[in-house]
Amino acid sequence: MKQSQLFTKTRKEAPRDEVAKNAELLIRGGFVHKEMAGVYAYLPLGLRVLKKIEQIIREEMNAVGGQEIEMTALQDPEVWKKTDRWDDATVDNWFKTNLKNGGELGLAFTHEEAITAMMCQHISSYKDLPCSVYQFQTKFRNEQRAKSGIMRGREFLMKDLYSFHTSPEDLDAFYEKAKEAYQKIFERIGLGDHTFVTFASGGVFSKFSHEFQTVSKAGEDTIYLSREKGIAVNKEVYNDEVLTELGLNKDELEEVTGIEVGNIFKLGTRFSHPIDLKFRNENGEDTSVVMGSYGIGLGRVMGAVVETLSDDKGIVWPESIAPFKVHLVEIRAKDEAEALYKKLTDIGIEVLYDDRELSAGGKFADSDLLGIPYRVVVSGKTIESGKYEVKKRDGGSIQMLGEEELLSFLKK
Amino acid sequence: MKQSQLFTKTRKEAPRDEVAKNAELLIRGGFVHKEMAGVYAYLPLGLRVLKKIEQIIREEMNAVGGQEIEMTALQDPEVWKKTDRWDDATVDNWFKTNLKNGGELGLAFTHEEAITAMMCQHISSYKDLPCSVYQFQTKFRNEQRAKSGIMRGREFLMKDLYSFHTSPEDLDAFYEKAKEAYQKIFERIGLGDHTFVTFASGGVFSKFSHEFQTVSKAGEDTIYLSREKGIAVNKEVYNDEVLTELGLNKDELEEVTGIEVGNIFKLGTRFSHPIDLKFRNENGEDTSVVMGSYGIGLGRVMGAVVETLSDDKGIVWPESIAPFKVHLVEIRAKDEAEALYKKLTDIGIEVLYDDRELSAGGKFADSDLLGIPYRVVVSGKTIESGKYEVKKRDGGSIQMLGEEELLSFLKK
Repeated sequence: MKQSQLFTKTRKEAPRDEVAKNAELLIRGGFVHKEMAGVYAYLPLGLRVLKKIEQIIREEMNAVGGQEIEMTALQDPEVWKKTDRWDDATVDNWFKTNLKNGGELGLAFTHEEAITAMMCQHISSYKDLPCSVYQFQTKFRNEQRAKSGIMRGREFLMKDLYSFHTSPEDLDAFYEKAKEAYQKIFERIGLGDHTFVTFASGGVFSKFSHEFQTVSKAGEDTIYLSREKGIAVNKEVYNDEVLTELGLNKDELEEVTGIEVGNIFKLGTRFSHPIDLKFRNENGEDTSVVMGSYGIGLGRVMGAVVETLSDDKGIVWPESIAPFKVHLVEIRAKDEAEALYKKLTDIGIEVLYDDRELSAGGKFADSDLLGIPYRVVVSGKTIESGKYEVKKRDGGSIQMLGEEELLSFLKK
Repeated sequence: MKQSQLFTKTRKEAPRDEVAKNAELLIRGGFVHKEMAGVYAYLPLGLRVLKKIEQIIREEMNAVGGQEIEMTALQDPEVWKKTDRWDDATVDNWFKTNLKNGGELGLAFTHEEAITAMMCQHISSYKDLPCSVYQFQTKFRNEQRAKSGIMRGREFLMKDLYSFHTSPEDLDAFYEKAKEAYQKIFERIGLGDHTFVTFASGGVFSKFSHEFQTVSKAGEDTIYLSREKGIAVNKEVYNDEVLTELGLNKDELEEVTGIEVGNIFKLGTRFSHPIDLKFRNENGEDTSVVMGSYGIGLGRVMGAVVETLSDDKGIVWPESIAPFKVHLVEIRAKDEAEALYKKLTDIGIEVLYDDRELSAGGKFADSDLLGIPYRVVVSGKTIESGKYEVKKRDGGSIQMLGEEELLSFLKK
């Protein structure tokens, strides 16, 4: 894409009321637009990142057999009353609204109830199990505070998967597969080195749930991390008994803050029982379905990447989720840059081509801010040398590469 | 995909409260799930159709230079007060809600205001124009009546594009391009023969807007159609003066009902003026940006396809938006069907493989209901003949094809 045609402009300053580093950089780069606290729109560059994150998650959810669906935001109170989650006294972050022709509705902050009720139409026998469904769906949460940029939204895109089983043992087996899928996702997104499986509080049906915590100063959770073992314990369950159970020693644990980028939870029959989601087992008896839930907030992941991987010049996108692979910067060499742009896009490389009328310094500063993995400069100097100047955004020195070398370097 | 693994089940009956044919068939086929009147979730088969419609629209919007973004549902009242569209006395279909920490919010029923306000950050000079942005975004409309299935939702996915120009003339040129793009979209989706550009009421800035009306008994609009000229006039502007202006004669017009699957509208400065979206022109003067808007409801398009193209046995999907291209039906020939399934998917053909334990009659009835374009039967009889039985869902007789013939027939 030609940058002169991109409608968004970079900005020197973020809005004054913005305190989160992720939102500051993303707004300055034109990735997102702030509607109000905790409510962000995605502009072309940001949407490209979000869609790449979505696609990685989709592939890994499909790999564990998940089937994609899309539920609705509007919620009928009746099913939420069955699980005692309609009343504002039990759930404090509902957005509620009214139908013109009478009746109150809620905006889903999660979808356990809706999906469990929907599944009553489709699950009746043990032969229908196990199965799992997932969606990328907008959640609404009426947060009192929303000061973490795109990491804590009042409206945000979430991937939530729900699994359905005949027994706790079958759930356990799937749960482990889901845990591995989550680790793959964070690895592929570029957060693998910073993200740790964290033991957190469970519920009636299991002692622990598991969070995926990305270590960051911007995190809102306190966790105790064993880097050696690659696991952590959330402060909420951090006590001697738990440490003994997990075979962890206080001395090996580091107190850090983490961003909860994902969580997985054994629900048991918490929702299927009150909503009456049953299956007939092999003996002809009707039994409540056993469930699990598995969430990832896409904006939160994107925010966590910005928080952990950016430097003082701007964002540093991992290649897997970068809006473009190459930032082609032209400095008084229109024809040559245009020709290279065509060559690169012809072989399927995603290029943002900075063809704007702007000083070299301005273009380089924007390139650092936008954080595209490979910066390729075409200028009078590079033409003279017969080579292109290539620099990786995540560090490393400038390389001078001839055209063939450049193409094979970037095709990798 | 193997049908035995698809979690949705077909149903003999639709819910009793469902009166719309589109929703009846889509619910029976397991394409959608009804949450409540006017609120439908998309299940795997339905989501596949929706995503294909989305991708066709995306390609045509990109082709006219549109840049994809995603705005938010939650709306700050301030900007809507500027255009006098916040008050329930002027807009009667708002869903409104309250922030925990004070203040009312709206759920966007459209996005002119939000996008115009956002553009103030990015447009300042004539050099930034023209440009256009679009999104696939959920709209919320507090409809009094919602009895048309997925064609009139209280919550529904819409593609809305907004264009920005220096002058009415520049808007006019883009508007014509958008009109052609819309015609291509309906053509590609399979509604081309049934869909007509229809003159409808304009606003302060233009005499007419244009609707794209799909002729159907299920339509809610009355239009006067000249099949010969391929255009129609909405009842709301149907009068002698307009007919004369359009060169139409009453005798050549047929009164029919239509489903409004798209509409395009010249907004002029209706929104940019009150929201103060200006650009500096070549003479250094600040002037209001001239705008247009262009909408398509995706669920409505999908519903219109079902309304117009289905028969008494079920849905008939056009190939371009079908959930799968081939419905492979196995009748007591597991090994052979499995082998063909593998061959077809290996060459990139999308196959739903009915490997369920079910009678041939049950499978054929489901196949007709689901409406996948090509039904391929593998049975003892076909194995004996060394050929496969192929039938197009949209009519035509049964063909017997050998393997090579079949592969080349389906690869087309």
